[in-house]
Amino acid sequence: MTTTAEAKTGTSIILGKNQFGKAEVRVVKVTRDSARHTIEDLNVSSQLHGDFENAHLDGDNAHVVPTDTQKNTVYSFARDGVGSPEAFLGRLGKHFTSEFAWVNGGRWSAEQYFWDRIEDHDHSFSRNKSEVRTAALEVENGRFHFLAGIRDLTVLKSTGSEFTGFPVDKYTTLQEATDRILATDVTARWRYDDVAADAGTIDFNAIYASVRGLLLKGFSATHSLALQQSMFEMGKLVLEAHPEIQEIRMSLPNKHHFLVDLSPFGQENPNEVFFAADRPYGLIEATITREGVPATHSVWENTPGFC
Amino acid sequence: MTTTAEAKTGTSIILGKNQFGKAEVRVVKVTRDSARHTIEDLNVSSQLHGDFENAHLDGDNAHVVPTDTQKNTVYSFARDGVGSPEAFLGRLGKHFTSEFAWVNGGRWSAEQYFWDRIEDHDHSFSRNKSEVRTAALEVENGRFHFLAGIRDLTVLKSTGSEFTGFPVDKYTTLQEATDRILATDVTARWRYDDVAADAGTIDFNAIYASVRGLLLKGFSATHSLALQQSMFEMGKLVLEAHPEIQEIRMSLPNKHHFLVDLSPFGQENPNEVFFAADRPYGLIEATITREGVPATHSVWENTPGFC
Amino acid sequence: MTTTAEAKTGTSIILGKNQFGKAEVRVVKVTRDSARHTIEDLNVSSQLHGDFENAHLDGDNAHVVPTDTQKNTVYSFARDGVGSPEAFLGRLGKHFTSEFAWVNGGRWSAEQYFWDRIEDHDHSFSRNKSEVRTAALEVENGRFHFLAGIRDLTVLKSTGSEFTGFPVDKYTTLQEATDRILATDVTARWRYDDVAADAGTIDFNAIYASVRGLLLKGFSATHSLALQQSMFEMGKLVLEAHPEIQEIRMSLPNKHHFLVDLSPFGQENPNEVFFAADRPYGLIEATITREGVPATHSVWENTPGFC
Amino acid sequence: MTTTAEAKTGTSIILGKNQFGKAEVRVVKVTRDSARHTIEDLNVSSQLHGDFENAHLDGDNAHVVPTDTQKNTVYSFARDGVGSPEAFLGRLGKHFTSEFAWVNGGRWSAEQYFWDRIEDHDHSFSRNKSEVRTAALEVENGRFHFLAGIRDLTVLKSTGSEFTGFPVDKYTTLQEATDRILATDVTARWRYDDVAADAGTIDFNAIYASVRGLLLKGFSATHSLALQQSMFEMGKLVLEAHPEIQEIRMSLPNKHHFLVDLSPFGQENPNEVFFAADRPYGLIEATITREGVPATHSVWENTPGFC
Repeated sequence: MTTTAEAKTGTSIILGKNQFGKAEVRVVKVTRDSARHTIEDLNVSSQLHGDFENAHLDGDNAHVVPTDTQKNTVYSFARDGVGSPEAFLGRLGKHFTSEFAWVNGGRWSAEQYFWDRIEDHDHSFSRNKSEVRTAALEVENGRFHFLAGIRDLTVLKSTGSEFTGFPVDKYTTLQEATDRILATDVTARWRYDDVAADAGTIDFNAIYASVRGLLLKGFSATHSLALQQSMFEMGKLVLEAHPEIQEIRMSLPNKHHFLVDLSPFGQENPNEVFFAADRPYGLIEATITREGVPATHSVWENTPGFC
Repeated sequence: MTTTAEAKTGTSIILGKNQFGKAEVRVVKVTRDSARHTIEDLNVSSQLHGDFENAHLDGDNAHVVPTDTQKNTVYSFARDGVGSPEAFLGRLGKHFTSEFAWVNGGRWSAEQYFWDRIEDHDHSFSRNKSEVRTAALEVENGRFHFLAGIRDLTVLKSTGSEFTGFPVDKYTTLQEATDRILATDVTARWRYDDVAADAGTIDFNAIYASVRGLLLKGFSATHSLALQQSMFEMGKLVLEAHPEIQEIRMSLPNKHHFLVDLSPFGQENPNEVFFAADRPYGLIEATITREGVPATHSVWENTPGFC
Repeated sequence: MTTTAEAKTGTSIILGKNQFGKAEVRVVKVTRDSARHTIEDLNVSSQLHGDFENAHLDGDNAHVVPTDTQKNTVYSFARDGVGSPEAFLGRLGKHFTSEFAWVNGGRWSAEQYFWDRIEDHDHSFSRNKSEVRTAALEVENGRFHFLAGIRDLTVLKSTGSEFTGFPVDKYTTLQEATDRILATDVTARWRYDDVAADAGTIDFNAIYASVRGLLLKGFSATHSLALQQSMFEMGKLVLEAHPEIQEIRMSLPNKHHFLVDLSPFGQENPNEVFFAADRPYGLIEATITREGVPATHSVWENTPGFC
Repeated sequence: MTTTAEAKTGTSIILGKNQFGKAEVRVVKVTRDSARHTIEDLNVSSQLHGDFENAHLDGDNAHVVPTDTQKNTVYSFARDGVGSPEAFLGRLGKHFTSEFAWVNGGRWSAEQYFWDRIEDHDHSFSRNKSEVRTAALEVENGRFHFLAGIRDLTVLKSTGSEFTGFPVDKYTTLQEATDRILATDVTARWRYDDVAADAGTIDFNAIYASVRGLLLKGFSATHSLALQQSMFEMGKLVLEAHPEIQEIRMSLPNKHHFLVDLSPFGQENPNEVFFAADRPYGLIEATITREGVPATHSVWENTPGFC
């Protein structure tokens, strides 16, 4: 929403794009319809778009749906179940854009944390921290745009990775490597086709599980000449398998594992002992998409970072 | 860069927007031209844009300027001084886009950490952690776009803040507050006019210090009816004082301080004892801009989060 | 080591207990004796005890084994394999206390991170972050004392937990709960019998796996009347199964999951929707030990926190 | 408390040392006795010692003062002001050990965060994050033992630091340095004389400010031949100035700043451009004490880490 506030402020300084809401609402939903409980564990954020100019210019809160109310709504809606983070965000988006005349869009996002049963126990669980599932919904002009994602999935290949043939200039000291460790934390987000999402034909949970598997498969199956190549292969597998996904973006830190020079101690080091460095790290980012899909989409604009 | 890779991949799956480089290069520059040393302490990231398709599709690294080389360049350039983070990023951007024919743009960013002298000592310092200064440069099509910023500047008003007159629906349980604590961590980024930046007329360090002061002044001087109102006043002060700034974006968490109910213990609590909550928190974000400035700009697209 | 430095300092101020070394040496060991690689991923710290008085009083470094040397030693020793973190620390402890006449003890510790194979792949792995394994060795007077441990193992029971019958005073507002969520992050350390360790009869890896399983079993199998009770049951299972373990200490945060009051929205909440709080949290800590084992042991003195 | 539980458990497995309470109670106290407000911002933890055996063995909570009650007590006591963290902890310790017959001791600790006025404003503040003040009280057998401390005080010398004359063995590759950067994060804890504390003659706030200044002075004024030497000088200044302090412990990471080799780029680097490394880091720890003070004290046993 961009409207002039010149008359009020006495200058040409105006309010541009804005949003507000409640961030990081931690909701744990236990489903107890039998002795065998299930857990859904989410961290939900809500941001409203609409006509909030008077709050900014005059401190008039008549349109400011309290962030506390947004939080309450999350908890109340959870009473009826979550299902998938995307479906849950969809219910929130529908509610806020229909309940308040001046709210014409927004952004709702969630992280989901996984729990495994302890030895198949009915109501005892341990957190599976191998990854975090993410979801985001952007609503604008009545259209619902969904992103799904994964983050913090840490993977490593102990061989099957090279880096050679790069350009050399006066600042180049790196040596070519024909056998190196390749390690990264996978962050990926994929955008669903709006039509498929509208039609309700997307099984968000099943696709999440499939994409996760394909990303792991793409990483492990590729003999890597560059992390860029591995990344493209990972994305290609996802798009080939899932026509309802329009594009996928990935951000992959190259987590350097440097071979330690053991020669001062009279030892060889045939790719066995490595120093795992913290910073700096390479950072490799790309969109893998379909021909004809627009290069930009509004849903990415409010998305933190590259993906 | 978006080019088709259909022939090579055998499908219509193509490479979209992409970038790569080295993130978080920690460089500390000591200037020792006299016994009275000065310190410049930066965390620099470099990301290149250009023709990197073959690396993604074939693992051909002929265009892949190693991230290690990018790191080396940062250190080498620091030998000649930093000056301001923006000027330093400008030198990096100029170098990479002119050194390699296939590099047509990029994003360079930095955080700067501050050090105070210990009792005016010549070479002993303590870290001033009250805030972090940020800078970013986006180069595309030969144009240089600069963002400056601040983050983690934590402020609090112990009175002079209200929240009343908000809409009430079935999910509203919040009570009106005519005297509350208002606290936030200021994250702000402002975009400089390209022409001024090109002309070299911007004193980045002086403007940073001025903007910092104006943000604090706007926060403390405003009797706040809404955090939105405080935010707009803070941004307005900045734009009024600095014509070379085109727009400013802010992301302000509302760090809730809840009044503790002491009545069970037979005590009143006239706004004296508060529980400082972690999560959830309100999140208030806006752009304050000038009339006629486009609502979007490419420089924001790669910027993490709202600002 | 506590020796007088009165003559040198001209006062009665002296050096007391002290240690120094290198912390957080990140070493990744790949074993490649076949196409099927294995990974050992450690974070090792080394601290020496001995006669370092002259360094403190005069800056005389003749006894100061450089922390860089300690780091190098870690990497060099890793070349010959790790085996178990405890065995690896044992080799370090033996080396430093025999190599340098003035080093009469020390503390060596490690964290181990786990990797799972991606679909049984020979050299592709994903990090299993469900927990971190810890180990510590304290050497003094030629005796080797071993601690093993686990941290960040997050568990939750969605029912089977009560909290009733507690004392009430004027500051008590808590209501009794006959059905609540019980959740905690397990941190545990257990101390091995010195004689067993000296005899080399301890299979550190097998016992770690067993203890991990017993802690999970104790947590899930106990109908909990208090987190203290669950904790004691967990420890008891471990000591009953493992005579070579003398005592076990646990530190268990009570990660509160508060039932959300949905009645303002016309909803019941029969233990289904919870707010997972960050702070404050309960903190429950205890030693479970064998009769006759001394209440204190030097190995705990340098151990961070309760356990 | 160590009592036998053999009869009940049917084995010789017993409960050893234990404690429980509420951790990280975030309390912000605003004093509004005039238009010029003051803020006290604390993070308080409470841990009780006493007879809690039945809770561990039988889940009998008759002695388990709820951690929620402990939290309430912190807030209620804050209503009457804080004064100093040590004085506040003293009130808590007195309360819990006199209110409940089975509570015979405990540990209470606090962190204090500092706020500066924004341009001398009456009720607007910015967080001063340069350091965190810490305090701890251990009560046992009716005696009150106080520790005060500081953490996260980051300091750096850009010259005036050497490291030479160290022993060389087969694992040594480090070169001597006659001019290096010395940087550390100061964590220090000092123990007050019990008699002085009992007599109420200690001005905790004034001594904190003084100790802080002396630590900075000791660091900056010492031409450092070893970080150990700087540390000892820092502690000596504190003990010389403050007879009511019995001993001080410090834990100082050696935050390595490595000189970057710029020779491949045809540049000299006369101690001007450094890489600030994350891990590993040196870790230098010592007690500086007075002759005749016992080498150990119960107050240190529950203190996380070396100090």
